[in-house]
Formats: sequence, structure tokens, C-alpha cells
Amino acid sequence: MIVEVARLGQRLVRDDRVTTHAALVSRAFGASRIYMSDTNAEIQDTMRDINKRWGGSFDVILEDNIKEIIRQKKRSGYFIVHLTMYGYTLYDYLKSYATPDRVLIVIGAGKVPREIYDMADYNVSVGLQPHSEIAALAVFLDHIQDKDHLDREFPGANKRIIPSRTGKCVSDL
Amino acid sequence: MIVEVARLGQRLVRDDRVTTHAALVSRAFGASRIYMSDTNAEIQDTMRDINKRWGGSFDVILEDNIKEIIRQKKRSGYFIVHLTMYGYTLYDYLKSYATPDRVLIVIGAGKVPREIYDMADYNVSVGLQPHSEIAALAVFLDHIQDKDHLDREFPGANKRIIPSRTGKCVSDL
Repeated sequence: MIVEVARLGQRLVRDDRVTTHAALVSRAFGASRIYMSDTNAEIQDTMRDINKRWGGSFDVILEDNIKEIIRQKKRSGYFIVHLTMYGYTLYDYLKSYATPDRVLIVIGAGKVPREIYDMADYNVSVGLQPHSEIAALAVFLDHIQDKDHLDREFPGANKRIIPSRTGKCVSDL
Repeated sequence: MIVEVARLGQRLVRDDRVTTHAALVSRAFGASRIYMSDTNAEIQDTMRDINKRWGGSFDVILEDNIKEIIRQKKRSGYFIVHLTMYGYTLYDYLKSYATPDRVLIVIGAGKVPREIYDMADYNVSVGLQPHSEIAALAVFLDHIQDKDHLDREFPGANKRIIPSRTGKCVSDL
């Protein structure tokens, strides 16, 4: 399965940390790239640095027109899932759909234009309560992947965490 | 099960949105309250407003000394779970532990003091990669609760979402 994420808009500065969380979660939960606009270009350096230390080749792609990205992906066969509290529930989605080969997950900061709802193949709600696009993204990615997906290896890391009950152990590789 | 959340520290302004996400996720995923310090007091108004519209009685408690809260909770029988990328994996935790009756979940913004690692009954890592305390909180809460927990009702709401595949439907109650 190829998973990519597109993040629509952000309210500059105020959302800077949330934008970083969106990229980090996409990477840690198995997406290969995130498309974003209107964001601080430093995010690309941050994520390159994360890849260098912790492995993998996650990509941040800065694009002015995220709608056009969604259109292109749709044309090239990606299944478009828009995460929104107004969508069908995650549980219904999981019952109805086999995992698609290629999926683009769309998350929004603030108000999302109506046409995004229409462009999506499926609007999915992770709980029918207002919360966080970061949480929704993580829980959705957790549910559509293998039960042990959090154990995945990130190739090329130069650091690795040694899990411990009370300590903080990191080994160099 | 009683679930409460404690958030340690934050870097003011820069983390304002993330703090709001932490409270919203705690509420939406079934916690009854969150303890936080050094935050914008408006968060309490925001969450009261959310309760009024969407139901439930989630509480934000502003406390200067979060460590003392953790100590008190531990003394009164809460199981303390600290979410950190250095902890034992979520999968190991789920294999080893029955769901405790009362759990306090500790999340940190930035560097967490060493003694928190020691105070925790269990340091749990949601994936061995850097990501987001918001995502870790959501995924952890998702895994320790019933399989249908996202369908829970929030009593006293004056709005309810009608799930829809492409629209945005909210009914007044």
C-alpha cells in the first residue's frame, strides 16, 4: 500500500507546531510523503534531519495548489480519503472498504472548502466529536495498516531506540 | 475505567494550538479531565463551549505543579502511563496489562524531566519514531478502550453530527 497525505491550508505561525506534527505523524505511521502549502519552508530541513537520524526517505512537498494535487492523484488511481468530523464513521469505512493499493489522505486546518468533500472518494470521521486532524490522521493510519505496523523498520537510521520501562536509551548504529 | 490526562509544560504561544488539540483529543477519546500548567487560561472557556455544544462534562484543570498531581494520583491508586518514544512498545504494554480501572496518562511537550520516567508505572512508546504527543495520546486511548468507543454518546449536547459521505450535516437537538 502506498500512503500519501495532503494538508490543506494553515493559519501561519499559530499552526506551525501542528504542521510539524502532521509531517512527523505521517512519517512515523507509514506515509511516504506529505503535500502542504503556505507553510514554513524549514519543515523540509526538519524532516530531512529526522530521516538522517531515524531512517527512511519521507518527503515533504511544498505545493501552492493542494486541490490540483488531489485532482491529479485521483486521476492516477489513488483512493481519496478526506478526514472530517462530518464524514461517515471510521468503523463504517473499515467495514465497507478493503484497503486500497494507493491512498491519499486529506486533512485540513480550519474550514475546508466544500469541493474537497465532493472530490473525496470517502469522507471519514474518526469519532463524531471535534478534536484534531493530527489525532484523526494517526488513528486512521493505525486502523488501515497491519496490526504490527508500528514495529516497522526505517532503513538507513543512524540512531535506534532501545525500548525501556523507565529509562531513555538510544543506540548509535 | 476512569481516564485522566496530565500535560507537562509547554512552550508558550508556539504550543498554543497543540495544547488545544491535547484537550480536544482527551475529551473526544473518553478522558474525563486534563491537567495542564503554563497554558493560556482561555482553554477552559474553549472547552466549556465545546461541552455546551457537543455534550459531556470534560474538565480542564490548570495546575502549577503537574508532578505533584502525578504523585497524588499514584498514591490514590491510579496507574500512571507516561507516553514517550523511549518507552516499551504499545504492543508489549497491551500484551502485559489488563486495562486498569483508573489511569492517568502523562504526555510531555518538549523535554520531560527524568523523574517522570521513574514516577510512571509504565513508559509506553506508540511507535519507536519521533512524532506527536497528540497522536500518541489518541492511538493509546484508542487501543485501551472498547472496539466501539468512538461511537460513545456525549450527554447534554445541543448539536449532533449526522454522518454523511460527501456533505456536512449537523442537527440541533
